[in-house]
Amino acid sequence: MEIKIMKNILDRNQNKANEVREILRGKKVLMVNIISSPGAGKTTLLERTCEKLGKKYAIAVIEGDITTDRDAQRLKKYNIPIVVINTEGGCHLDSHSISKVLGEFDLENTDILFVENVGNLICPSQFDLGEEFKIAVVSTTEGDDKPGKYPMLFREAQAVLLNKTDLIPYTNFNFDNFKTDLDRINSRIPLFKMSCTKGDGMEEWFDWIEERMKNFRT
Amino acid sequence: MEIKIMKNILDRNQNKANEVREILRGKKVLMVNIISSPGAGKTTLLERTCEKLGKKYAIAVIEGDITTDRDAQRLKKYNIPIVVINTEGGCHLDSHSISKVLGEFDLENTDILFVENVGNLICPSQFDLGEEFKIAVVSTTEGDDKPGKYPMLFREAQAVLLNKTDLIPYTNFNFDNFKTDLDRINSRIPLFKMSCTKGDGMEEWFDWIEERMKNFRT
Repeated sequence: MEIKIMKNILDRNQNKANEVREILRGKKVLMVNIISSPGAGKTTLLERTCEKLGKKYAIAVIEGDITTDRDAQRLKKYNIPIVVINTEGGCHLDSHSISKVLGEFDLENTDILFVENVGNLICPSQFDLGEEFKIAVVSTTEGDDKPGKYPMLFREAQAVLLNKTDLIPYTNFNFDNFKTDLDRINSRIPLFKMSCTKGDGMEEWFDWIEERMKNFRT
Repeated sequence: MEIKIMKNILDRNQNKANEVREILRGKKVLMVNIISSPGAGKTTLLERTCEKLGKKYAIAVIEGDITTDRDAQRLKKYNIPIVVINTEGGCHLDSHSISKVLGEFDLENTDILFVENVGNLICPSQFDLGEEFKIAVVSTTEGDDKPGKYPMLFREAQAVLLNKTDLIPYTNFNFDNFKTDLDRINSRIPLFKMSCTKGDGMEEWFDWIEERMKNFRT
């Protein structure tokens, strides 16, 4: 019975996600759904990305949080449109909540809409929000076994951002183990190594998102 | 409608959890439900705890994992009874899955049954497994804002273990911010600072769990 209920929830989510995607494609807005464990660095990634690409592209953000607007507060300094969705205990965003807030944005004048999902390596990967693609952020301090132990997101995502590379010397993170697992799950996925707090290794990510933006518009 | 479904799921879970708790109390087995984000250090905590308390107490472990038995493999060296529950995509353990595996243990000769839940700071906190209490493990590398942003677990748990204190010098973790949030949510909860990989600061945790064990048995 629970499987049937879950199927209904996912079906209804999928229908609304398709509607959202159609609206955003009509307005040429690239929506990117950012997923990670709590504290892997999603907000810091957005900070660096706003600094680098904020002049070239009109960036907007949806912040998914259980409670509080702390991540949104961190992004206020970039003077970009931000809408907070508090899930009030819910462990992921869904397409209905995205659909309800789309009207808050000036979509005609938006290039990229980043969605920072709730910090959770599991549930958000099952829900299509109407995004063009998902990206997975994973930090070295979580250990090198995350793709192996939590494979769903690494199958769903179109890029993996390995963050906090500056902390590798102080941990037992083994890059070869990480890569071996990831290759087994999704061998063709682009992998970007970076430290968002230090600003190291971010150029490949910026180039990739710009390339995706160009392909999306043509 | 979804709220009603969730209520039914939680009610059924609660009934079974009460059954499990009654069985374990009858056998004087202390069950502890360990919850954290992915990679916060639950398995390493169990390694250190087996090393310290494994001679004094008969420890057994239930490993909750989406897929793989990697955490169980890490604990094999302690020659303790371990049962793996693979949730096959599920984001938390529930009391029904615990109930089904209890028969695998020799409960007459078990003192402490640790449950390592699926790595997820949100969903597991809603599900009573029949444990005596939950503990929250949170690592400094996740940032100091976790109690504020994910309050449910910090309300539910009976102790907070702040792990990876050895990495504080390399991060922007601010202990005062962390403590202020935690005090607001659950001012009386015991807080233990430690580094499970280095073995630092673990004595307070060992003492506390021994004290709980004594109180449970009398």
